[in-house]
Amino acid sequence: MTDVKRVVLAYSGGLDTSVILKWLRETYDCEVVTFTADLGQGEELEPARAKAELMGVKPEHIFIDDLREEFVRDYVFPMMRANAHYEGLYLLGTSIARPLIAKRQIEIARMVGADAVSHGATGKGNDQVRFELGYYALAPDIKVIAPWREWDLTSRTKLIEYAEAHQIPVPKDKRGESPFSTDANLLHTSSEGKVLEDPGAEVPDYVYSRTVNPEDAPDTPEVIEIGFEAGDGVSINGQPLSPANLLASLNDYGRRHGIGRLDLVENRFVGMKSRGMYETPGGTIYAAAHRAIEQLTLDRGAAHLKDELMPRYAELIYNGFWFSPEREMLQAAIDHSQAKVAGSVRLKLYKGGVHVIGRTSPNSLYSEKVVTFEDDAGAYDQRDAAGFIKLNALRLRLLGRRDI
Amino acid sequence: MTDVKRVVLAYSGGLDTSVILKWLRETYDCEVVTFTADLGQGEELEPARAKAELMGVKPEHIFIDDLREEFVRDYVFPMMRANAHYEGLYLLGTSIARPLIAKRQIEIARMVGADAVSHGATGKGNDQVRFELGYYALAPDIKVIAPWREWDLTSRTKLIEYAEAHQIPVPKDKRGESPFSTDANLLHTSSEGKVLEDPGAEVPDYVYSRTVNPEDAPDTPEVIEIGFEAGDGVSINGQPLSPANLLASLNDYGRRHGIGRLDLVENRFVGMKSRGMYETPGGTIYAAAHRAIEQLTLDRGAAHLKDELMPRYAELIYNGFWFSPEREMLQAAIDHSQAKVAGSVRLKLYKGGVHVIGRTSPNSLYSEKVVTFEDDAGAYDQRDAAGFIKLNALRLRLLGRRDI
Amino acid sequence: MTDVKRVVLAYSGGLDTSVILKWLRETYDCEVVTFTADLGQGEELEPARAKAELMGVKPEHIFIDDLREEFVRDYVFPMMRANAHYEGLYLLGTSIARPLIAKRQIEIARMVGADAVSHGATGKGNDQVRFELGYYALAPDIKVIAPWREWDLTSRTKLIEYAEAHQIPVPKDKRGESPFSTDANLLHTSSEGKVLEDPGAEVPDYVYSRTVNPEDAPDTPEVIEIGFEAGDGVSINGQPLSPANLLASLNDYGRRHGIGRLDLVENRFVGMKSRGMYETPGGTIYAAAHRAIEQLTLDRGAAHLKDELMPRYAELIYNGFWFSPEREMLQAAIDHSQAKVAGSVRLKLYKGGVHVIGRTSPNSLYSEKVVTFEDDAGAYDQRDAAGFIKLNALRLRLLGRRDI
Amino acid sequence: MTDVKRVVLAYSGGLDTSVILKWLRETYDCEVVTFTADLGQGEELEPARAKAELMGVKPEHIFIDDLREEFVRDYVFPMMRANAHYEGLYLLGTSIARPLIAKRQIEIARMVGADAVSHGATGKGNDQVRFELGYYALAPDIKVIAPWREWDLTSRTKLIEYAEAHQIPVPKDKRGESPFSTDANLLHTSSEGKVLEDPGAEVPDYVYSRTVNPEDAPDTPEVIEIGFEAGDGVSINGQPLSPANLLASLNDYGRRHGIGRLDLVENRFVGMKSRGMYETPGGTIYAAAHRAIEQLTLDRGAAHLKDELMPRYAELIYNGFWFSPEREMLQAAIDHSQAKVAGSVRLKLYKGGVHVIGRTSPNSLYSEKVVTFEDDAGAYDQRDAAGFIKLNALRLRLLGRRDI
Repeated sequence: MTDVKRVVLAYSGGLDTSVILKWLRETYDCEVVTFTADLGQGEELEPARAKAELMGVKPEHIFIDDLREEFVRDYVFPMMRANAHYEGLYLLGTSIARPLIAKRQIEIARMVGADAVSHGATGKGNDQVRFELGYYALAPDIKVIAPWREWDLTSRTKLIEYAEAHQIPVPKDKRGESPFSTDANLLHTSSEGKVLEDPGAEVPDYVYSRTVNPEDAPDTPEVIEIGFEAGDGVSINGQPLSPANLLASLNDYGRRHGIGRLDLVENRFVGMKSRGMYETPGGTIYAAAHRAIEQLTLDRGAAHLKDELMPRYAELIYNGFWFSPEREMLQAAIDHSQAKVAGSVRLKLYKGGVHVIGRTSPNSLYSEKVVTFEDDAGAYDQRDAAGFIKLNALRLRLLGRRDI
Repeated sequence: MTDVKRVVLAYSGGLDTSVILKWLRETYDCEVVTFTADLGQGEELEPARAKAELMGVKPEHIFIDDLREEFVRDYVFPMMRANAHYEGLYLLGTSIARPLIAKRQIEIARMVGADAVSHGATGKGNDQVRFELGYYALAPDIKVIAPWREWDLTSRTKLIEYAEAHQIPVPKDKRGESPFSTDANLLHTSSEGKVLEDPGAEVPDYVYSRTVNPEDAPDTPEVIEIGFEAGDGVSINGQPLSPANLLASLNDYGRRHGIGRLDLVENRFVGMKSRGMYETPGGTIYAAAHRAIEQLTLDRGAAHLKDELMPRYAELIYNGFWFSPEREMLQAAIDHSQAKVAGSVRLKLYKGGVHVIGRTSPNSLYSEKVVTFEDDAGAYDQRDAAGFIKLNALRLRLLGRRDI
Repeated sequence: MTDVKRVVLAYSGGLDTSVILKWLRETYDCEVVTFTADLGQGEELEPARAKAELMGVKPEHIFIDDLREEFVRDYVFPMMRANAHYEGLYLLGTSIARPLIAKRQIEIARMVGADAVSHGATGKGNDQVRFELGYYALAPDIKVIAPWREWDLTSRTKLIEYAEAHQIPVPKDKRGESPFSTDANLLHTSSEGKVLEDPGAEVPDYVYSRTVNPEDAPDTPEVIEIGFEAGDGVSINGQPLSPANLLASLNDYGRRHGIGRLDLVENRFVGMKSRGMYETPGGTIYAAAHRAIEQLTLDRGAAHLKDELMPRYAELIYNGFWFSPEREMLQAAIDHSQAKVAGSVRLKLYKGGVHVIGRTSPNSLYSEKVVTFEDDAGAYDQRDAAGFIKLNALRLRLLGRRDI
Repeated sequence: MTDVKRVVLAYSGGLDTSVILKWLRETYDCEVVTFTADLGQGEELEPARAKAELMGVKPEHIFIDDLREEFVRDYVFPMMRANAHYEGLYLLGTSIARPLIAKRQIEIARMVGADAVSHGATGKGNDQVRFELGYYALAPDIKVIAPWREWDLTSRTKLIEYAEAHQIPVPKDKRGESPFSTDANLLHTSSEGKVLEDPGAEVPDYVYSRTVNPEDAPDTPEVIEIGFEAGDGVSINGQPLSPANLLASLNDYGRRHGIGRLDLVENRFVGMKSRGMYETPGGTIYAAAHRAIEQLTLDRGAAHLKDELMPRYAELIYNGFWFSPEREMLQAAIDHSQAKVAGSVRLKLYKGGVHVIGRTSPNSLYSEKVVTFEDDAGAYDQRDAAGFIKLNALRLRLLGRRDI
């Protein structure tokens, strides 16, 4: 058994992490410091403070931080600059939150002189990897405690028995098995497990919590306009907004119009396939808008390179390698391309769909004069195309002469 | 002036290619062979025969071929196996048709002993490149005539004057300027030019021809099920269909539900940005379904490699390099992954949206037993995750020890 | 403790695997089947049979297979088609042998009805991963025993004590610590550990066993000619040779001229850096020749795609993913490119260097007529270059107009 | 005919560019400004001034610039940070010089108010593309004159006749045909054409000018030590040197030991294969040393990403896209990795070979404690490898269960 003196626990205030809190003390005879982050998950955090106090955590060892702006500004937006979609579809809502939590946990560990950190992620999922790679990257010699991989509370019944045996209040709705589990933050809500475990069966309507059913969305489309500067969103319908406020506002639009639902079978880093349901209302709108403004302002060479690097970049985030040299290298390349990504995108929101209907930019590379079917007054000499094609064809012709 | 004896012209029967037919004869004093392909563009082709005869083309020199099955089977489906989207969004409907037309033109040139081929693509677009790279790859020493790059009919007025001076009938609706130009086949209809040239202005509703406006689509979703074998679609709702029939049927579904509209600013191979509008109703449904069945049946290694290769593959098709060693190499890799991509995908179509709601497969790699939150009876040992994370973290820890 | 009935052990006949043999029986109370492969490591294998018999292995449970031809034909040559170098330099001599051993072990396990396999690789290296990924890929439910990760014989002293306690003969030269450890096969010999562990210190001369010191190599260069067909070597100086014989012959040339020594600090899959010394005499010559014949016969598109895929391909082999869908996909792409890679390469061997001095091919794509400075009689129209450059420059000009 | 008032000509002072100077004036009735760059080609530049004056160029219109330090610091070194080799072998000596010449030419054009630039590259080669892409990227509306694509001096005889008719002195050794043509700068000398046009024939010894024949190199190896900081070379044998002086010094070492000769068949951007001979003495040593210091100081993730990006990066430079967004993006990624690439590499130079024999670094990521065969006192827990392998194998096992 590792010797642990003081451990910083990522603490939600819920049943599971309360059990962990107790179990850590019992198992390691150590002091527990709780850390609860507001990432926009939409829950009150003060109850977590009350519960921690009730569990006997010293007031100065209870950390509750509003990380919403940092989350969107330094994690979501940089990721969106890459147009990152894991396996073509997933906007990485859970993946991108983990490194920030890990980073803050390590900062707190340094502040309070803790020698260990702990989290409530299970041994089958990606989150354990994301947390722990973050911990180790930022504090190579920190001790990491992952209770779900260590303890023998291997079923919900045992967990509840443990809670009851240790005077941890068990909310009524936690007594039975939850029909699925969720994770939420300002970017998305994910759901998985139980009722979702058959990838052939449609996700039941009650699983959705962040969006209306597209069928129940308004019958009239709504048009919004997102403004961008240097690759990041800065305004909606002309109103300047901070990163977190912008995303929150897009979440409202998305919720109302049933946007951003995703039923996915994905490949976890730990080796198995899982089926999840994601709701990323604002993020889905934002991603469409970002690509649209890039269409106008990014050169082809930059755009295609970004598209080629994207799958690797998304995989790194999904797998938990945010704090890695290769993610940072890719970020440097991506960020280098964004200086002139500015302008305005109009989108029509309707019944679950996001439709780009126009974009303008002071930095537009689109030249109506060059592209027009009309006489272009010498902007482009069509005869140049002959030579262009001839030299592009040369190697194919040499090949054809040999092989045909 | 190149010496040309007999030229095979890609002939639509429309005004432009009729003018080209005449101009080729006048300019090169050569015999013209016409080739008209049915790629599912939805037009009668026999009028093209009548017009060609009227223009004096010998009956044995008029070729009208139904290429729909070959088009979908050997071009669209292989491309869909790659989940190809150019610049993240465009399903390459025009790009993928050009190589087949080029190939057939060359075959006809061989049959009739022609020494040249000609097409009606302009000097500013991608299609000239796609046609000509195809010609040169398959017949390295063929002569290629691109009238739009050569002649002085540089405005519609001049073209119509030429037509009238040469007794070519000019349809009434071709007298004025068309407000946009289109290309159509079984996979899509593209529109560009004129009224579409301002990327900030919404595409007018009258430009759409293949889909209803999502707002006018049925208020009730429709669920369909697409069956796959070896990576290709084989049935809809249990009914076996040939490739072309399957795509045609999906087009009907897509049209009805307003699916597959895309307003895009894209980067042409010839160097400028253009704004186009694409309608790919059936293809959009098919692409979503193909990715969904891959989710269940492709290993992560294969899936991620495909995602990384895709942008390059799509770019090659867009740029006209279908008949190139590198496209074939990528195809070999992609096709190698598809043997087990089989099963069934259910999709909900609603108001412009395609939503995957379930997928099943006899070849599923998804293991509920492994992934379950419940006791998995030893299918997966959570303690393995500790070692997995530790070794993945090792290099980051060594780095952290150096740099932090 | 896993229940094991019969285990197939990768058995060299040396001290370590003899101890393992004994330990397996003692620990698991199971029957041990030995498998000894001739991969061209240059040792007599019959002594391994004698030792296994002496250790009490049933004669029908002793497998000694000459895999040299299969090794070179189905593993080394396919890898060489990719011009694979790990981290730019390493020809993967150990990595490429492991999958074949694993595959044969699994075949034997099936033949003798074994339920487990075992190997003698340590817990810090790559080889354990390579063996076990091979085992699991080919027999997903096989039990795998890795004694070095399980037992408590954690030092050489303990190992020798165990041997002596169990009547396993300990050769005199194994009593002390070996100054480094080696792995050898027809492709290479690797050395690492102990005297090599300081990456700043030159590799002592006595570590080299497969090549003379370049300084001691002949003062006169030797020229050889390697013939290729379909991407693989088939002859030396006009004499047809089987794959294994060809590589063996190149090893002789390489040894004599001091070719193929490599002092490398590399990144292991398990997360740390290690320093190794490799001698790949014949492989180094072969790799240079293969690239040279590709220069003449591969189209640029194919060649560049291969170069871009290579690092990933090499990494997969290094990490032990030979039997993975993504390696097979890459192989399919690579192999597709090799049909016309045929001809002859002349190389000068001298004092540690391999210098390509000429190549010829019936499938050459090199055209003196096109490339010549002299009048090329119309093979290439220099004016085409103007259009080629103009259109390649177009996007850069549009960018420049915006940004400068 | 384009209207040109003043043109900046890349002027070597040799016969060809002197003829161009004259031809520009005659053809365009324009003023010619000459620019001669010292890139370390090893020729006196003052004679170029004298010749330009003799040809009537105004003194204030004669520019002779020593660009050696800028060349190595801002072009060669950044490229070397990427370990760039075109088609696996070529160190891009000519390609990397062109953008700097183009940039300086444009700067001069701005200074003297010129409306055009001109160069002496032929219409079959890569250099015309490199020059002109540079011009257009930096001055989108500049006029570009490429005499070799325009004039009718299509043979050497005609060129000399033109020279004589215009009182341009023709050196005796330029009267006959040169047996090959060369380009030289501080990084390399390239030779191609005529006697080199048969890729099957060995390069004649008289073609080499920058290195001794390895057979004539010293019989005793020489050991040198190169110091690096932040990814760039800063010293030799402990003596600090500026970039250009460091490369010049390495050139001396390389010349003496016959290092850096390369006989290559390469694929030109304009579509054909060519055969060239390159001598890159110092660059070859430098490239080996840079990779060696990276081995010790770069994390695996960074190193492998660099290896995967390299072929694309090298291709961009070869094709002339130095001043492109995508090259700059890749450079940003590469440079991000280099901050800690510091230390010292010892190399043995002998008879054409460069052999790394040791490297040390204050930033080493190599941990003898972790990697050792000996007891590592808990630095690495071998049992972690079991879990690592198990989870890496999981997807392969699921696959195997389905497919075997």
